[in-house]
Amino acid sequence: MRLTRPPTGDPLEPKAGRDTVRRHNLSLVLRAVRDAVEITRAGVSARVGLTRAAISSLVEQLLESGFLSESGKTFSGQAGRPGTVLKVARTGVAGLGVEINVDYVSVCVVDLAGTDRVRLVEHLDNRGTPPAVVLHRAAGIAARALASAAEQDLRPVGAALALPGLVSSGTVREAPNLGWSRVVAEAPFAAALAALRPGLPDLPVRSENEANLAALAELWFGDLRSVRTFLYLTGEIGVGGALVLDGELLRGAHGFAGEIGHVVVASDGPDCRCGSRGCLEQYAGQSALLRAAGLDGPTGATGVAELERRARAGDDRALRAIGGAGLMLGRVLAGAVNLFDPAVVVLGGIYRPLAPWLVPAAAGELATRVVSGLWPETGDRLRPASAAADAARGAAARVVQDILTDPLAYGTRAGQCG
Amino acid sequence: MRLTRPPTGDPLEPKAGRDTVRRHNLSLVLRAVRDAVEITRAGVSARVGLTRAAISSLVEQLLESGFLSESGKTFSGQAGRPGTVLKVARTGVAGLGVEINVDYVSVCVVDLAGTDRVRLVEHLDNRGTPPAVVLHRAAGIAARALASAAEQDLRPVGAALALPGLVSSGTVREAPNLGWSRVVAEAPFAAALAALRPGLPDLPVRSENEANLAALAELWFGDLRSVRTFLYLTGEIGVGGALVLDGELLRGAHGFAGEIGHVVVASDGPDCRCGSRGCLEQYAGQSALLRAAGLDGPTGATGVAELERRARAGDDRALRAIGGAGLMLGRVLAGAVNLFDPAVVVLGGIYRPLAPWLVPAAAGELATRVVSGLWPETGDRLRPASAAADAARGAAARVVQDILTDPLAYGTRAGQCG
Repeated sequence: MRLTRPPTGDPLEPKAGRDTVRRHNLSLVLRAVRDAVEITRAGVSARVGLTRAAISSLVEQLLESGFLSESGKTFSGQAGRPGTVLKVARTGVAGLGVEINVDYVSVCVVDLAGTDRVRLVEHLDNRGTPPAVVLHRAAGIAARALASAAEQDLRPVGAALALPGLVSSGTVREAPNLGWSRVVAEAPFAAALAALRPGLPDLPVRSENEANLAALAELWFGDLRSVRTFLYLTGEIGVGGALVLDGELLRGAHGFAGEIGHVVVASDGPDCRCGSRGCLEQYAGQSALLRAAGLDGPTGATGVAELERRARAGDDRALRAIGGAGLMLGRVLAGAVNLFDPAVVVLGGIYRPLAPWLVPAAAGELATRVVSGLWPETGDRLRPASAAADAARGAAARVVQDILTDPLAYGTRAGQCG
Repeated sequence: MRLTRPPTGDPLEPKAGRDTVRRHNLSLVLRAVRDAVEITRAGVSARVGLTRAAISSLVEQLLESGFLSESGKTFSGQAGRPGTVLKVARTGVAGLGVEINVDYVSVCVVDLAGTDRVRLVEHLDNRGTPPAVVLHRAAGIAARALASAAEQDLRPVGAALALPGLVSSGTVREAPNLGWSRVVAEAPFAAALAALRPGLPDLPVRSENEANLAALAELWFGDLRSVRTFLYLTGEIGVGGALVLDGELLRGAHGFAGEIGHVVVASDGPDCRCGSRGCLEQYAGQSALLRAAGLDGPTGATGVAELERRARAGDDRALRAIGGAGLMLGRVLAGAVNLFDPAVVVLGGIYRPLAPWLVPAAAGELATRVVSGLWPETGDRLRPASAAADAARGAAARVVQDILTDPLAYGTRAGQCG
């Protein structure tokens, strides 16, 4: 990911060395408070390993810049006399996440604690619309979410775009289901958003594959607990994927790893928008699923909700459609597990509500075809994604992560527009 | 990987702290000399960032323990007056690698510089033979290689086993083509080797998947140069695979990553020894290839050499067999590239001699099915493995890497049996 505008100060400014150390220590303190939820200065000192005096000075600066807040409570921890309780601020600096998918745009504002504070989802068909128009629409939705955030005294200082395709250096190389090829996304979105917010500071914008950001959301906010190595699948119009290895996204040589939707299921299967044939997406993507279930009318979220309703009611055609998709999913997942050996596989997007029927259908293939014999037919190694984790939240949280890494870079901006 | 006997000293010995720092510095100096090939003490000082006095003391100890040698040459580098040239010792401490595969055992002794100094390959059928007998045979071959090494004044101080299966904590969980399941390999091999070398110190033995070690050999000794993220395939009776990410083996959650031979090509294809059906191995493994070419008589290396000869002569059936295997290989590789996004794919084992015909057959599938469009039909992103890199050499070099990481642990042993 790349920032359209670097948020750091002038690299030629004097005392860069001492300034760098202080910025790093501010980040250490801020993250210590965030991780602890509630903590005293003495507690921070014990965690971070700096003197009480140094911590006090750093905390003062973070309080003044609005990153921390002090509660009236006092708290007697293990280290020293009772002290005032520190928390990360629940107002002020925040992150903006914008997922632009094929049939919806989802916008999320996340505060410094990682809490999802504003959510705005609009269902619309982005296929066949010029990319510039889609980005402009998304900026409009983002501007409305920013207005809601302002009502809560939240002021996002950066944005991340989640896009269903191969994203590298701010450019969408290919997003077959959107029909995008070599589309520059960050700068036009930033410009459109700036035009909608005259007088307010521009937001630096970064972009990333949506499955990658959904996987990070699962890692940060989901129910995985100690699991740090997993494969994440997200079913939408396309089927996206992401690999997380020891808590880090596996990006590959060009940043394009995780494209499980285009693994071949049947070499002579239906043509895929990617130019190949018989890709998983042609069997387990949203359109294929709805078509197989005879749901040609309702599309998008409405169609998936109807499919889930029918499956719950025991509708034979719906159950066969999901079962067929689950079988193909299991076959491709078995290969992916043989290659990558994840601890668990997480099913997100439309697979989450359909998991009660998809998981059993995929389980047999996994049990038979995973060579380690480590994939028993029962258990929770194939599981639905957490409700609280999606790509828009992952995108917003990615911005918050940037803030926590170098608060001063955003604190200055906070001062400008406070 | 795990050592059957830890090579480090008594953890309760006094001055552990200072001792640890010195051990670390000895390793820094030894690796600096190895990387530089030829270097003076001043050069080492400049590279490592320790004082000349400290470097001299460390170099003395490494010379006395036989890890370094001094040449008569003097060399005027950038730092200070001309000095004597240091090199890693080409005699004494070395590593032993033993690849036990389905139809051969290959043993290799590598010196501290990484040079392959002894090689002994015996072709024999290890299928249907009890694991204890196979391990005993392999120990006999290793003992003969050790005798050859002694002729060159080389004294391996540790051994690594390369095994065609899922290896974890010294146990082969599954090696379908050997017919092994839950076989403890390290201890019986170590015991058999010790019995053949009475009076000599026991060698600590570790074990690892053979494709992983072949991939490391390619990384360390092959022609990849700056490529640090690649997928390695090795065609034998089975088809093994390894993923290298930024110069490190990707092991997955249980150490079983890279099993590309058991990715499904055709869900209803021939039964595979792993319990699944239609695995890549059933189309592109050695037996399948020879059978498709009508080579039912000659097996193993003889059969592959005959297949290569016939392909070179333009024999239609041989070319069709290799072309068919290449097509299936390309299909599975396209999926693996979509998932992992390697910079290159390396074909080792029997695929190396067959690459002139396999690569063009696989290229079309890769060009069509890799979603990034980053896999052009021509180019060298799919390439044969280097001749100098194989699993036995990787295994021996893995031992040398251990020595370089903590020379003192092996230096003591060197003293015991010098």
